[in-house]
Amino acid sequence: MANESTENHGKAMQPEETPQLQALYRAFDEHNIKPLWTQIGNIMPRHPAPKAVPHIWKWSDLLPLAEKSGELVPVGRGGERRALGLANPGLDGNAYISPTLWCAIQYLGPHETAPEHRHSQNAFRFVVEGEGVWTVVNGDPVRMSKGDLLLTPGWNFHGHHNNTDKPMAWIDGLDIPFSYQNDVGFFEFGSDRVTDYATPAFSRGERLWCHPGLRPLSGLQDTVNSPISAYRWEHTDRALTEQLLLEDEGQPATVEQGHAAIRFVNPTTGGDVMPTIRCEFHRLRAGTETRKRREVGASVFQVFQGKGSVTLGGDTRQLDVGDIFVIPSWVPWSLQAETRFDLFRFSDAPIMERLHFHRTHIEGEEK
Amino acid sequence: MANESTENHGKAMQPEETPQLQALYRAFDEHNIKPLWTQIGNIMPRHPAPKAVPHIWKWSDLLPLAEKSGELVPVGRGGERRALGLANPGLDGNAYISPTLWCAIQYLGPHETAPEHRHSQNAFRFVVEGEGVWTVVNGDPVRMSKGDLLLTPGWNFHGHHNNTDKPMAWIDGLDIPFSYQNDVGFFEFGSDRVTDYATPAFSRGERLWCHPGLRPLSGLQDTVNSPISAYRWEHTDRALTEQLLLEDEGQPATVEQGHAAIRFVNPTTGGDVMPTIRCEFHRLRAGTETRKRREVGASVFQVFQGKGSVTLGGDTRQLDVGDIFVIPSWVPWSLQAETRFDLFRFSDAPIMERLHFHRTHIEGEEK
Amino acid sequence: MANESTENHGKAMQPEETPQLQALYRAFDEHNIKPLWTQIGNIMPRHPAPKAVPHIWKWSDLLPLAEKSGELVPVGRGGERRALGLANPGLDGNAYISPTLWCAIQYLGPHETAPEHRHSQNAFRFVVEGEGVWTVVNGDPVRMSKGDLLLTPGWNFHGHHNNTDKPMAWIDGLDIPFSYQNDVGFFEFGSDRVTDYATPAFSRGERLWCHPGLRPLSGLQDTVNSPISAYRWEHTDRALTEQLLLEDEGQPATVEQGHAAIRFVNPTTGGDVMPTIRCEFHRLRAGTETRKRREVGASVFQVFQGKGSVTLGGDTRQLDVGDIFVIPSWVPWSLQAETRFDLFRFSDAPIMERLHFHRTHIEGEEK
Amino acid sequence: MANESTENHGKAMQPEETPQLQALYRAFDEHNIKPLWTQIGNIMPRHPAPKAVPHIWKWSDLLPLAEKSGELVPVGRGGERRALGLANPGLDGNAYISPTLWCAIQYLGPHETAPEHRHSQNAFRFVVEGEGVWTVVNGDPVRMSKGDLLLTPGWNFHGHHNNTDKPMAWIDGLDIPFSYQNDVGFFEFGSDRVTDYATPAFSRGERLWCHPGLRPLSGLQDTVNSPISAYRWEHTDRALTEQLLLEDEGQPATVEQGHAAIRFVNPTTGGDVMPTIRCEFHRLRAGTETRKRREVGASVFQVFQGKGSVTLGGDTRQLDVGDIFVIPSWVPWSLQAETRFDLFRFSDAPIMERLHFHRTHIEGEEK
Repeated sequence: MANESTENHGKAMQPEETPQLQALYRAFDEHNIKPLWTQIGNIMPRHPAPKAVPHIWKWSDLLPLAEKSGELVPVGRGGERRALGLANPGLDGNAYISPTLWCAIQYLGPHETAPEHRHSQNAFRFVVEGEGVWTVVNGDPVRMSKGDLLLTPGWNFHGHHNNTDKPMAWIDGLDIPFSYQNDVGFFEFGSDRVTDYATPAFSRGERLWCHPGLRPLSGLQDTVNSPISAYRWEHTDRALTEQLLLEDEGQPATVEQGHAAIRFVNPTTGGDVMPTIRCEFHRLRAGTETRKRREVGASVFQVFQGKGSVTLGGDTRQLDVGDIFVIPSWVPWSLQAETRFDLFRFSDAPIMERLHFHRTHIEGEEK
Repeated sequence: MANESTENHGKAMQPEETPQLQALYRAFDEHNIKPLWTQIGNIMPRHPAPKAVPHIWKWSDLLPLAEKSGELVPVGRGGERRALGLANPGLDGNAYISPTLWCAIQYLGPHETAPEHRHSQNAFRFVVEGEGVWTVVNGDPVRMSKGDLLLTPGWNFHGHHNNTDKPMAWIDGLDIPFSYQNDVGFFEFGSDRVTDYATPAFSRGERLWCHPGLRPLSGLQDTVNSPISAYRWEHTDRALTEQLLLEDEGQPATVEQGHAAIRFVNPTTGGDVMPTIRCEFHRLRAGTETRKRREVGASVFQVFQGKGSVTLGGDTRQLDVGDIFVIPSWVPWSLQAETRFDLFRFSDAPIMERLHFHRTHIEGEEK
Repeated sequence: MANESTENHGKAMQPEETPQLQALYRAFDEHNIKPLWTQIGNIMPRHPAPKAVPHIWKWSDLLPLAEKSGELVPVGRGGERRALGLANPGLDGNAYISPTLWCAIQYLGPHETAPEHRHSQNAFRFVVEGEGVWTVVNGDPVRMSKGDLLLTPGWNFHGHHNNTDKPMAWIDGLDIPFSYQNDVGFFEFGSDRVTDYATPAFSRGERLWCHPGLRPLSGLQDTVNSPISAYRWEHTDRALTEQLLLEDEGQPATVEQGHAAIRFVNPTTGGDVMPTIRCEFHRLRAGTETRKRREVGASVFQVFQGKGSVTLGGDTRQLDVGDIFVIPSWVPWSLQAETRFDLFRFSDAPIMERLHFHRTHIEGEEK
Repeated sequence: MANESTENHGKAMQPEETPQLQALYRAFDEHNIKPLWTQIGNIMPRHPAPKAVPHIWKWSDLLPLAEKSGELVPVGRGGERRALGLANPGLDGNAYISPTLWCAIQYLGPHETAPEHRHSQNAFRFVVEGEGVWTVVNGDPVRMSKGDLLLTPGWNFHGHHNNTDKPMAWIDGLDIPFSYQNDVGFFEFGSDRVTDYATPAFSRGERLWCHPGLRPLSGLQDTVNSPISAYRWEHTDRALTEQLLLEDEGQPATVEQGHAAIRFVNPTTGGDVMPTIRCEFHRLRAGTETRKRREVGASVFQVFQGKGSVTLGGDTRQLDVGDIFVIPSWVPWSLQAETRFDLFRFSDAPIMERLHFHRTHIEGEEK
């Protein structure tokens, strides 16, 4: 991809490498200067040319490694979380699934506690299977169950505890790479144990805010992050079910024929749940193939239910429940559903949109 | 009230009425001029001095009159609706409950249809009792049941039909006075019969939008009006119940001790359901008395459940289910709950806030 | 106009006036009820049917009456201002130029002071001729000179003083009718003399804010009203001159061929100067005729320079410098320029837009 | 700084490196997994711990190197610009002055043309000395003179040409590093020569938009980027002069005593000129020392006039006209003015604010 995007670039004008020019380049180095004309083809490509590559992590690989970590690695203050970060093969060194996003599988054994801390980085959890853990967010215990999305937005204290005799694993999504790269992160330790071991069915955040179109008079100030602590599978499933039923009844399709989708939003604004991370849920009918599209910014999907495949920049790969894949910026992709196919998605789209860098190209549509 | 608010005003400077001045005043009249100095005490009072007065309409008066109208007055094209407008005794002439708002009891007999039309005026229905009517909004049939709030925002075609053998009555709220006074209204006739006589349990608007914190990808553009066609009592009741339970558990009260409340909002923005009308629902525990407050702008309440009283500018009056009262601008008011006391409220607060005229004074709080 | 807008309305369904119906109507009266079906044709017209009428006030009438008032009527506390309100002939009783707007000619004799006060009502002054008065806004003295627009937004203390041996007259624009009608106004007396008799060439508001595209770091919070206390003619004139020069150079015209225009805006938001009043300045080349248009909401124009005419709902009238005319809601209008023709305009458009009632129809364009 | 910020982090919990653990770590590598517990101290520091370091580039070094480049390196298609990027010594490899920002000195010889292109990256030019070049932005020629700020926001075609017999140098600021890091950039070649060699004193953008508080009716839609193509020194200087005069007259200081400052803004919104870059101009009276502050995000200053010094994370360095320095995220800094001291500043603050990562700490103030 780099080749295509840089052709004609940084070539036409390159001056001949005379001794004088070499001396000039040495003087540049001494004074911490780099000329644009030798770099422009690389740093200003014709279209996004990500180092990050499309990649799929199989749940059947991840879960056993998480279980093994459960045996060998304690959870506690210092390491903070027993989390296995998915490291994009194109981004050597750190556990970055994209230049902006972090995605990890986290594992908590029976009756374990992951201590409380807070950080500028925005975080969520998505539960592909299991139950029994509560995340305590600023003192509010939030049940984690299959299909739920939980938020721990920046600078909220949070810890986790497993209330059962069985382990539990889920995925964490954060903006750690963005935060690290741009030097914006603060971090603070909290309680070594969670501050409340209660295990209510519903958190206070949900009880106040999870009534459609109803805003408590105690919450009339708009908030940067969604006050909904957990988006329950029951609601997500019903919303997607209704969309496909409406399509059956002759109403317009949501995204495209056979493709239903919801975005998780902040009820105080209707906007994204957090300033850097978008969360969505997509459902395809069996047999549906989505139109090929490219988008500026990176997306991560996890298969929640069903069977299907993804075409990522040319390659088509089979997907099973729990599999996670990343689509780097401007890489073309489409999904194919073998059965009814449910996928959780998160992305850095709010960054792209707030900074006006977003672009989408859908095959067959004019730009 | 006018006296207090105008004292010292328009008096100090009044010039002596000499023949010359009288000649000048005649010249003013000839040229369509009115001097400020003779009017200022009236038109620029020290604080809002509404002509509208606090008033209570008893449901026990309204309903029989509506029933009688059902016998004597047909519903159909021309008159459009069998609606009895509540006319504020201070605002002679028209059916204005306040200078901005219209409130009426509407009545539809068995198997009757109120024809479709659309208008710039924003409208809602609130159902204090009964069931069996569907409102068809731009072709989407919306069930009307006890405790529900239904929206028909400006310029949407809408009609009603009664699907049963029993009559049904409910209240309509609109911004007709504001619209008329400021010359903003357009009106268009639609179908003489409603365009769809189906009676689904849930409208398409609800099926797409009534999932807490979930936004369909078909609805990513923010809208001026809420896309939720009906706010169901079941959700309202649950939200209020949770607020009081949270208070029981030691969490902060919503409005004040024993006073729970929700605002009905547009899920695409978190703001009011329509640009001119705010809708809320309030619940008081038995024994609660709200703090006395004054607000710029007019509010209308209808008792939905329970017993209590209202103190309106000095007078305290008993309230029963269905009773409707209006609080003109800056009139002090408070509520007292004898039993658990549920009230629907609507007001012109969005007008006041969007134009930055809003002010609230709560007794015991600094301004 | 009322006829056209109400045809077919409120007729088809009128029930026969039987004794029973008459009894019902009496019962309505007793209970403060008015039925919709007898009023709908009036209060919900097919399109805006204003009581306000198009009208022109000649400066040659206004100025002598203002001068005469200067002889006969003192200025001071109580009457507050020597202001002659223009009373729309269609709106009997008060000095309302439209249902929303007030327009007056104010007159201050040599060395007179109009005392300080503040009110919720938003106000501006526009100076069609003369100089020598300073308006003191919250302690900041603002020079008034020919062609200038001065703001005194809601709840700012303000007074005027004439620093010269000559009288001065100008126009005031306020939202008094809107404020009175909707019961939103507060009023407070201030100092009987202005708090600062200094006569600087530029106010502090201008010195901080009148630098194009530059925002002082002391003013990073957006404000409801423009912090610019005076918009000087020199800038307005230059902006309009440049627009017509650009048109000469082949660039697109501003409004239409030969028609330049600027809107006065709040530099902290780019929006209108105050929440209820829009101010604009229009310039037509000699020979230009504007396209006929209708708009929801009322506008007032004052001729500043040049000669021309206005067609208002069918009638064409000659206009001279200082003449003021009002265009009620939805009345068609166009301007014709005999010479270069400069006009100041103010309107209630921010009310219409913030409440989403605005509509414009331009002849020859699809709606 | 890294030490302080990472203490206690990533240590307490590190498990013993048993053969089993080593095997697990090898399995992680095979599956593109990195555990959080070994990285957290690095990637989630206690506070921002930038790799970028504070650094100063002397104009007396930069200008001769630019001149030498003028002799040896042609300007034209492919290399595009004769621009020397300032490479932060902490960010090895590329010409990044911070993780987000690019800053270069650009040099154009007599009668040279830098060809037209456009890119997603937002850019500006600031002219510390000289004149004679015009930047052509989407066909609008914009004069470049001493003290001026010129914008070429993302995706606008632009080229430069030198109309004189003398060379000219200036600085370019862009968001290239941010754009590259996050894979958002598009790039397109335009005309090899600029599309218009006219040399007007003022661009069309200025002629339409540079009238304080006046908005042309042809530009009522808000724009993402400022429509002002050049912010002239004459306005900037006057704004700063007035701020200090007002302070002399007893009005509140702008930033702090002796410290005046303006932000360059988009007149359609009052917000930053472009979505990723903030531009400001600061003026200190002789003898003024600013309070020490830390901010999230990176800033770059260039001295425009006067003499002074900067304290950057502990070191104090003398500054002369043209000198450029960078302040990485959260590094404490203050300025000291020996003479009247004028500095241009740009930063990535809009990124930080739009994503809600901004924080400021001022010495002596509570956080």
